[in-house]
Amino acid sequence: MDIYEESVQLHKKLNGKLEVVSKTEIKDKKDLSLIYTPGVAEVCRIIDKDHEKAYELTIKGNTVAIVSDGSAVLGLGNIGPYAAIPVMEGKAVLFKEYAGINAFPITVETQNSFEVINLVKNIAPVFAGINLEDISAPRCFEIEEALQDIGIPVFHDDQHGTAIVLLAALINSAKLAGKDMRELRVVINGAGAAGTAIAQLLLCVGHNPDVCEPVKEIIVVDSKGIVTTKRADIMENPWKMRLATITNRNQVEGGLDDAMTGADVFIGVSKGALLTPKSIKKMDEKPIIFAMANPTPEIMPDEAKEAGAFIVGTGRSDLPNQVNNVLAFPGVFLGAIQARAHTITNEMKIEAAFALAECVEKPTVDNILPSPLDKTVAPKIAKRVSEVYKKGQELLKNAS
Amino acid sequence: MDIYEESVQLHKKLNGKLEVVSKTEIKDKKDLSLIYTPGVAEVCRIIDKDHEKAYELTIKGNTVAIVSDGSAVLGLGNIGPYAAIPVMEGKAVLFKEYAGINAFPITVETQNSFEVINLVKNIAPVFAGINLEDISAPRCFEIEEALQDIGIPVFHDDQHGTAIVLLAALINSAKLAGKDMRELRVVINGAGAAGTAIAQLLLCVGHNPDVCEPVKEIIVVDSKGIVTTKRADIMENPWKMRLATITNRNQVEGGLDDAMTGADVFIGVSKGALLTPKSIKKMDEKPIIFAMANPTPEIMPDEAKEAGAFIVGTGRSDLPNQVNNVLAFPGVFLGAIQARAHTITNEMKIEAAFALAECVEKPTVDNILPSPLDKTVAPKIAKRVSEVYKKGQELLKNAS
Repeated sequence: MDIYEESVQLHKKLNGKLEVVSKTEIKDKKDLSLIYTPGVAEVCRIIDKDHEKAYELTIKGNTVAIVSDGSAVLGLGNIGPYAAIPVMEGKAVLFKEYAGINAFPITVETQNSFEVINLVKNIAPVFAGINLEDISAPRCFEIEEALQDIGIPVFHDDQHGTAIVLLAALINSAKLAGKDMRELRVVINGAGAAGTAIAQLLLCVGHNPDVCEPVKEIIVVDSKGIVTTKRADIMENPWKMRLATITNRNQVEGGLDDAMTGADVFIGVSKGALLTPKSIKKMDEKPIIFAMANPTPEIMPDEAKEAGAFIVGTGRSDLPNQVNNVLAFPGVFLGAIQARAHTITNEMKIEAAFALAECVEKPTVDNILPSPLDKTVAPKIAKRVSEVYKKGQELLKNAS
Repeated sequence: MDIYEESVQLHKKLNGKLEVVSKTEIKDKKDLSLIYTPGVAEVCRIIDKDHEKAYELTIKGNTVAIVSDGSAVLGLGNIGPYAAIPVMEGKAVLFKEYAGINAFPITVETQNSFEVINLVKNIAPVFAGINLEDISAPRCFEIEEALQDIGIPVFHDDQHGTAIVLLAALINSAKLAGKDMRELRVVINGAGAAGTAIAQLLLCVGHNPDVCEPVKEIIVVDSKGIVTTKRADIMENPWKMRLATITNRNQVEGGLDDAMTGADVFIGVSKGALLTPKSIKKMDEKPIIFAMANPTPEIMPDEAKEAGAFIVGTGRSDLPNQVNNVLAFPGVFLGAIQARAHTITNEMKIEAAFALAECVEKPTVDNILPSPLDKTVAPKIAKRVSEVYKKGQELLKNAS
């Protein structure tokens, strides 16, 4: 029985991987009147006077919604809100296992961005945060942006979860290669949700003077070649236009091979793309390769190493250096919840990446990230994320 | 410490009465790949081909959303989606305790009926049913009606839960009074969610020839007097106009006292209304009184009995004959889920009421309903509700 068939059997046996349980028991009429009416009325009155009290008196304080419209699920594409449920449920299991957070899957029967935005805004009262998941680009950008001021953190994991883990991997890789982060030339192959978020985060690194400068150069490549402001198709896509404006500072034109010449880092986040040994040979010394296409990486680690790669990471659990979002989102949400943050700022994402990188005491070329099974990671990230948010709030307070 | 303060303390201690837990553990990389990627992809593919498979492979098969906009919460009124959370969570606890159903509270930041309808329709994929709760009339009518064809049962408990338990109480009360259900003259004081649903259900009883005829007469009274098609204010309210058309067959006009003359049954479902001993004395022999205003009944049982009442029921747990919705909704939803019903039909509601009435082996004037703590009730109702739905489906199939 292969892993797929075994997974189906497990799902049949479980009839749902999650369960909503009560933390308390109803043994007699008194229990009923404490948990429900009439006693509960007083709890309602308290929250009516101060909505913030919902955080300590209800499930809101520790509960996240995982919202997806099923438009870009795993490598399966637009399979819709029914077929997406098992993934969102799995994600909820991870939230509980790694961060002790209650997470509930909400898969929605609309792919109209306006409706999704409205829906998320309207269900927000009962949640401490919203994890957007598997929503296709560029819709994921407009949806996430529109939801930044609803009072609770809204975080599209396919974008920022991936970007955080990638940045952590890059921090340790650069250290091992003896390269300065500020000097790195990075090629990102893929201009979707993950590619865009990675570019943004690498550019933000420098926004925090305590941390470091941004990398030297980022060139993004999509299926039509290098992303530049000069390409006619990009002028028609406002999200790619923004990406073209903030990356490729020399406005280089051409294809992947042109971008790769002299690059230090290759980050592959495009479905079905390929990376050849020839391309790797064009890179600077000690090339760092993240071949994250799933399930088949852009190049297998053996082949990449043979072509001269110094470090190779993939998305796969059966290969070294697995770049897995589970290393980031539980800790990021836990930290945001602990700080009762209203948004997840770039500073929090960068801090999460540094905290994650530091979880590996002695990085080696085959061990740049902790194991996805390591349950000490999330609390460590949470602490740092929460601290940096609070520090930011302090600075704001003192400035005003 | 009174019950209110004790309830607040309990809520503080619990930090949420619910918890979302995983039914399975992640011990190693294999667990991760079975519960999440890559194994889960196969489960997605199966559901993509057949959405019905989500019932057995995901949480959908046994999960209900409790949706409220907080517009009519308990006796507290329009306290909104934050202050409503403790009630919806309490309800979710009851769903689990009595029916083993996962229930999740969704309190929404809009009181625009169109937005609520759209939201419920859009979150439906992950749920087996929707329990609407504490939504004010007449909005609750338009919201519920618009959602009857979304493929899963949508049931406003304040309407139909109350109506079912009331009908069960009435069945046993009429039996004890030696009165034929078909001969009953019923006065309903209150034309909101509960009053309207009770009138509709009592009129529907006769739609099923196996069961019995509808009651003889229903007169509904609201704050302005007896509901008739002649009242100017009622002509302006389409929902009350509908109610006026289906009740009060002799189009009697006047106030509560006029309605009470010769009545067999009084059903009080109006906040803050009063019932005087004088009114009870105008009723037919062996008057049956349901004084369900909460927390203060329209008349206390002692006083009602002194005025000649034969049976008195209230909504209170410290008095005999408690009419409590928890006797209905867990069993109704469990039955609907077991039958995989797309809606909850009137036949199912009526069957639920008869099943509930039969849960009391030997009714007495102070024991017309089972205890709200009796956990054998829900499975009994579920069985009958599920059977009557399947029977209806069979009839439909044979007829076509």
